[in-house]
Amino acid sequence: MIRGYVAGEIPDYQMSSLAMAVFFKGMSAEETGYLTRAMIESGSTIDLGGIQGPLVDKHSTGGVGDKVSLVLAPLAASCGCVVPMMSGRALGHTGGTLDKLESIPGYRTDLSVQRFTELLGRTGFAMTGQSERIVPADRKLYALRDVTGTVESIPLITASIMSKKFAEGAESLVFDVKCGSGAFMKNLEEARELAVSLVRTGNSLGRRIRAVISDMDQPLGLMVGNFLEVREVVEVLRGGGPKDLIDLTIRLTAHMLILAGLQPDLQSAEKECRGKLEDGSAWDKFLENVELQGGDVRTVQEEAGGPRAPLIEPVEAGESGYVQRVDAYQIGIAAGLLGASRERKEDAVLPDVGIELKKLQGDAVKAGENLCLVHGREAERIDAARSIVQSAYSIGGQEKRARERVMEEIRDDDLGKD
Amino acid sequence: MIRGYVAGEIPDYQMSSLAMAVFFKGMSAEETGYLTRAMIESGSTIDLGGIQGPLVDKHSTGGVGDKVSLVLAPLAASCGCVVPMMSGRALGHTGGTLDKLESIPGYRTDLSVQRFTELLGRTGFAMTGQSERIVPADRKLYALRDVTGTVESIPLITASIMSKKFAEGAESLVFDVKCGSGAFMKNLEEARELAVSLVRTGNSLGRRIRAVISDMDQPLGLMVGNFLEVREVVEVLRGGGPKDLIDLTIRLTAHMLILAGLQPDLQSAEKECRGKLEDGSAWDKFLENVELQGGDVRTVQEEAGGPRAPLIEPVEAGESGYVQRVDAYQIGIAAGLLGASRERKEDAVLPDVGIELKKLQGDAVKAGENLCLVHGREAERIDAARSIVQSAYSIGGQEKRARERVMEEIRDDDLGKD
Repeated sequence: MIRGYVAGEIPDYQMSSLAMAVFFKGMSAEETGYLTRAMIESGSTIDLGGIQGPLVDKHSTGGVGDKVSLVLAPLAASCGCVVPMMSGRALGHTGGTLDKLESIPGYRTDLSVQRFTELLGRTGFAMTGQSERIVPADRKLYALRDVTGTVESIPLITASIMSKKFAEGAESLVFDVKCGSGAFMKNLEEARELAVSLVRTGNSLGRRIRAVISDMDQPLGLMVGNFLEVREVVEVLRGGGPKDLIDLTIRLTAHMLILAGLQPDLQSAEKECRGKLEDGSAWDKFLENVELQGGDVRTVQEEAGGPRAPLIEPVEAGESGYVQRVDAYQIGIAAGLLGASRERKEDAVLPDVGIELKKLQGDAVKAGENLCLVHGREAERIDAARSIVQSAYSIGGQEKRARERVMEEIRDDDLGKD
Repeated sequence: MIRGYVAGEIPDYQMSSLAMAVFFKGMSAEETGYLTRAMIESGSTIDLGGIQGPLVDKHSTGGVGDKVSLVLAPLAASCGCVVPMMSGRALGHTGGTLDKLESIPGYRTDLSVQRFTELLGRTGFAMTGQSERIVPADRKLYALRDVTGTVESIPLITASIMSKKFAEGAESLVFDVKCGSGAFMKNLEEARELAVSLVRTGNSLGRRIRAVISDMDQPLGLMVGNFLEVREVVEVLRGGGPKDLIDLTIRLTAHMLILAGLQPDLQSAEKECRGKLEDGSAWDKFLENVELQGGDVRTVQEEAGGPRAPLIEPVEAGESGYVQRVDAYQIGIAAGLLGASRERKEDAVLPDVGIELKKLQGDAVKAGENLCLVHGREAERIDAARSIVQSAYSIGGQEKRARERVMEEIRDDDLGKD
């Protein structure tokens, strides 16, 4: 079916009715595995067989303030993994790794396959966009699903994500399945269904897969916006930064080390990761990569370096109390409105704009205190963003504990064969 | 959606995904009613407002030996109904009313709307093919359903049947939902689902509808084949013929008289029907119609008249016992093979060929006795048909009672509002 569809022999109307049938009736992991394989075979694949070391990648289903990849890739590389990371762009309320990287002046994300492979061999990781020649079936099928209401089908999402990751040369994969208002999966049940589908389908293809379901009801870390997030990444790589971001990144990286066979268990793997953050190894890897991919290293090394929005306006608390919730979806929408993301694929994004959170879930706040700072270019958009941010914050009298980021972990050895 | 689809604004791939969604999720009677109405409005409708008398029609889902319409239309007309009957053609194992009528030499089934209306006003019934301009949405949608595996969806079947019948000018409708091997609906559950859907959807459009579920596991009557069936129709209209055919026809016609407001209940309506069969009124109506539609009246009046196949070969019982079953599907296939039906829409049918059953379910039979006669034109096809017919008959030692034709009746007053 996939072969005929890509060749233009099977018409759209038959593929769309199949997609709708799958939407309602689902597919087994084995069937999803066959679809994934057929999609991989629809285009070219990247052969990283010449590279020494275990090829492990991480994929996030996308969220608000999700800059994990920028810390994780150098961290995993500094622990001995080879991370062939091909990423996507910001769309709607979610950010994109490529846009974050490109906010570093000079940084190139359009590496040739040859250059990508070369950098991988040298630094242990490299960051680039997805090649047009990889999994053409996914682009064609996704466009059709988009106009026939069949995007939100777990097996179709699974095959779409998985086919690209394996075509890009990864041997094993860790998934960060985001869950909550700022994520594609709004509740734990849906997130769990996708996580299990990813792990089982990967297994049916003979691959080792783990999935972490992480909370995306609140933005991750404090910064939302391209270079704002790069600044936070630098902080973490230099031993600082917010705990939720550090802990989630370490957990995901630790799973990669286990899949790579470099560490026996989570405890030792996490200890290894913390060590490589503290001793500066990950930071060195990051700087090496920025330089190799054409980025201006000084802009990340110096605190005042890099793009900075001309206007920075505070959003103040209207009442005293405790922050009950900072709605990730609304924060993402506000950041997008400022120019950190795009509405349509063709639009450009701005490197400097975004939202800097000052108060998070659980924090005590006094009326008039700053909840966050809005970084923008135009007063009008800033005003609109401030009012969205205002409603993203719920403040109440009750004390509130911040939620744990890691909600569940799905390992292949936990699941029976499908 | 239907308007846009017929106008070419909505592409096939969106309609096929909708059809698949309906296939799996169904539609309420109200939704099916909206679809039916949109389909009616996709083309022209026949306005029979100028005709005196209640406009009632009957529709059968199709079977083997189903010549009910040819008796029912003149019978209902002789009781005071106006029956605007637009029929279909034989396909596969099922016969078609148009082909049966056209086996009467000279009979025309391509009446103009004007002539159709004129004959309706004169005789109280007329028989013609479906106009191309009626419900164009159905032709387009059916072709798409055919290639996307979505033909067998109860709400889509309902809208397809119902839209055509109402566009043709009927006010109320009686459905004969066939059930069994020779029918589209193979079991009672499916047949009941369709019958209830037809009645409820009609009600949601403010129409009065009744449905009879009748057994089509055995052929109806003794004759299968175009002019063979006309001969059996003539027998019934002259006061003879097989009981199962007479009883089912009377039951269906009686429901029409009730919907037309001409009779208060089934008992009195059936009595009225029997009277009109016995006193020759229905026969007179039939002859009047044959003459008006250009048919050679003598071929139906004289027992030896009309087309007759050159070869008539018996099929004999291989063993003694009781006929357990005469499989309608296989009899239909055998008749089709002889030329009574067609495999593709473009093929022609033969008027004279078919199968004349001599033994029915429940009959005692001795080895070597004739089970039926095969009427054909070519020895080779006759041989093939005989072997199919042979396997259609099951003979066993146990006594067996013939099944009742009427299995269930669904009336709108039995069903709560949907």
